[in-house]
Amino acid sequence: MRILIVGAGGVGTAITRIAARRPFFDHMVVADYDLPRAKAAVAALGDRAARFTPARVDAADARAVTALLAEHRCDVLLNATDPRFVLPLFEAALAAGADYLDMAMSMSRPHPDRPYEEVGVKLGDEQFARAGEWAERGRLALVGMGVEPGLADVFARYAADELFDEIEEIGIRDGGNLTVDGYDFAPSFSIWTTIEECLNPPLVYEKERGWYTTEPFSEPEIFDFPDGIGPVECVNVEHEEVVLVPRWIPAQRVTFKYGLGEDFIGTLKTLHALGVDRTEPVAVMTDRGEARVSPRDVVAAVLPDPAALGDRMHGKTCAGTWVKGVKDGRAREVYLYHVVDNEWSMREYGSQAVVWQTAVNPVIALELMATGVWKGAGVLGPEAFEPRPFLDLLVEYGSPWGLREQ
Amino acid sequence: MRILIVGAGGVGTAITRIAARRPFFDHMVVADYDLPRAKAAVAALGDRAARFTPARVDAADARAVTALLAEHRCDVLLNATDPRFVLPLFEAALAAGADYLDMAMSMSRPHPDRPYEEVGVKLGDEQFARAGEWAERGRLALVGMGVEPGLADVFARYAADELFDEIEEIGIRDGGNLTVDGYDFAPSFSIWTTIEECLNPPLVYEKERGWYTTEPFSEPEIFDFPDGIGPVECVNVEHEEVVLVPRWIPAQRVTFKYGLGEDFIGTLKTLHALGVDRTEPVAVMTDRGEARVSPRDVVAAVLPDPAALGDRMHGKTCAGTWVKGVKDGRAREVYLYHVVDNEWSMREYGSQAVVWQTAVNPVIALELMATGVWKGAGVLGPEAFEPRPFLDLLVEYGSPWGLREQ
Repeated sequence: MRILIVGAGGVGTAITRIAARRPFFDHMVVADYDLPRAKAAVAALGDRAARFTPARVDAADARAVTALLAEHRCDVLLNATDPRFVLPLFEAALAAGADYLDMAMSMSRPHPDRPYEEVGVKLGDEQFARAGEWAERGRLALVGMGVEPGLADVFARYAADELFDEIEEIGIRDGGNLTVDGYDFAPSFSIWTTIEECLNPPLVYEKERGWYTTEPFSEPEIFDFPDGIGPVECVNVEHEEVVLVPRWIPAQRVTFKYGLGEDFIGTLKTLHALGVDRTEPVAVMTDRGEARVSPRDVVAAVLPDPAALGDRMHGKTCAGTWVKGVKDGRAREVYLYHVVDNEWSMREYGSQAVVWQTAVNPVIALELMATGVWKGAGVLGPEAFEPRPFLDLLVEYGSPWGLREQ
Repeated sequence: MRILIVGAGGVGTAITRIAARRPFFDHMVVADYDLPRAKAAVAALGDRAARFTPARVDAADARAVTALLAEHRCDVLLNATDPRFVLPLFEAALAAGADYLDMAMSMSRPHPDRPYEEVGVKLGDEQFARAGEWAERGRLALVGMGVEPGLADVFARYAADELFDEIEEIGIRDGGNLTVDGYDFAPSFSIWTTIEECLNPPLVYEKERGWYTTEPFSEPEIFDFPDGIGPVECVNVEHEEVVLVPRWIPAQRVTFKYGLGEDFIGTLKTLHALGVDRTEPVAVMTDRGEARVSPRDVVAAVLPDPAALGDRMHGKTCAGTWVKGVKDGRAREVYLYHVVDNEWSMREYGSQAVVWQTAVNPVIALELMATGVWKGAGVLGPEAFEPRPFLDLLVEYGSPWGLREQ
């Protein structure tokens, strides 16, 4: 297997470090808009760098990406950029006859009149619309294959296959107790993506009603996270699992809640009230004369790079899937989860916990594709595949998962 | 008198409208970086535009401003830009042998080690350092001549001259009940300046201790504003009056408190925690390639122009000077104040209340200079001059002031 990874940011860099220890692939091209960043990711692999080649590419330029796939005879494109680049990369892989993986899906657009009640364009709609072409060409687009979405969807499939006869609700719940020394405000993941998912209308699925939306930060609940993290207030957030899970798993209700905390919610609300969360460019004076910039890009440029904060970070992050239903005629409730301790991920991989937790999952998926354990054609979510081999590899990668009966 | 006004923003435009009704000057050149903005200000004067000429100038370019002063044979430069341009305009006027007025003084820099206890470079320090040159050349730099600083300083001098034998404290208190329809967050004055004054360490003067600083938003108090505005929570803010008043008026203590309100304070704190209040440029992608932009300029570009919100604004703004001391052996406490109702300023001048209230004061000062009532040389604050003629002209301009015994 020859892989092109596009995006050598925090997650992309962690992917190279995890993949470098596994023999399943022949070569990985590490491409970024910023060539020195791609080179730095490869150089950091030290004596494990032989199978890696840095390259420069603009993820927005589908033709250039297709050419790069051909040039390096890559079988698969792994998208490790932010969600703005999903569609050009998805197109580029299809045009090159390569398989494709991403960790976030094509972007949503709110309903024009009733944004906080009805769905407009949902996450991934523009990818699923092309599913026929992928199936016809016998190529696989494995979408939403990070941790959330990704591992969370694998957990949902595992619960449906092995733990429940009937499922009432599947609720992805994400929380942690990470702190960053020396910063008033330092998000532990891409602020661009965090703003996008938290300020869009949250999505809920109900079997009777279908998909619908709510006001941001709705339905707060306290969820008790395992492994010493403890109770965290979680709120509804727009996320791919709510789109993916109901397509493959019968459940009465699917939700996603994020443990943002009161301060973080307040900050996001202020960004929104000011309008600096916007992506539409505004005219401003620069050292190159008046130019148009996206306010959200400026917020991201001002904040510290979350991938670079691992040394100042303390605590754990938890991703997981809470499932409520019936097994053998009795009510059952479980939380399937994966915890990463920042101290461990920094020591083992030099990657901070949130970034490492996202990165390990597409590497496992690639290994399952390379070994033929996971195969398929079309646009498929992680819950379309056998969950056991995935969960076993996660343990083999040194990062076990857990199950808590509630 | 021939006047060059630099800056055709909200305050500059209101100045042209107020000045156009007064016969005391011969000509006013209205200059801005953005020539269409200067032309629009002049065009809006209609049949009163004959004494006005629009021009283009970069306020940061002292040589160009000096040349413009010479070209139009101007006697005085009125600076209506933001505080970044105080020094080049101050220099330009001196080089051209013109008098100079501004409404905000040269910028402060916090103490390098103890920013919230000791002063570093104070507001206006860099202007007062040049006072000798101005005095030698017989030219007047009348600094801080808006409403606050400006009218507030005139009130302080009036209190010292006519209302008190001894003064314990002079406290500038600014508050209002303005609201703006249709906006989650819409500052009523330049957000660039508001961030600058509110996030810098607030300045306090005490006779025994001299000038010192505190944490931002310190010493909250409820101040009851007149004319139906009512009680507003006010906090310490860095402002020129605290520098100016003690130079000319003996008082035990001088403070400035601004009625920001809890929401506004929360928003400013969030801007600061994120770092988007910063002026140092960051690199970001633009439609002209990667360029360096000041995050605070982006915040200002995203927010609505406060000068353009008059039609959606409701309520009144109050600026004033609270004085506590002794008269004829008895304790006395007064609040000298000036209230502008947005409905009135919009109807009479098409200018919103805060902008109009700032703009009227330098026009009155220019009239007093033109008629020889106010004269002097050096770098002088408003409290260096006779207050009565100023307060009488304010009434004549149709906008009376008030006195409340507490």
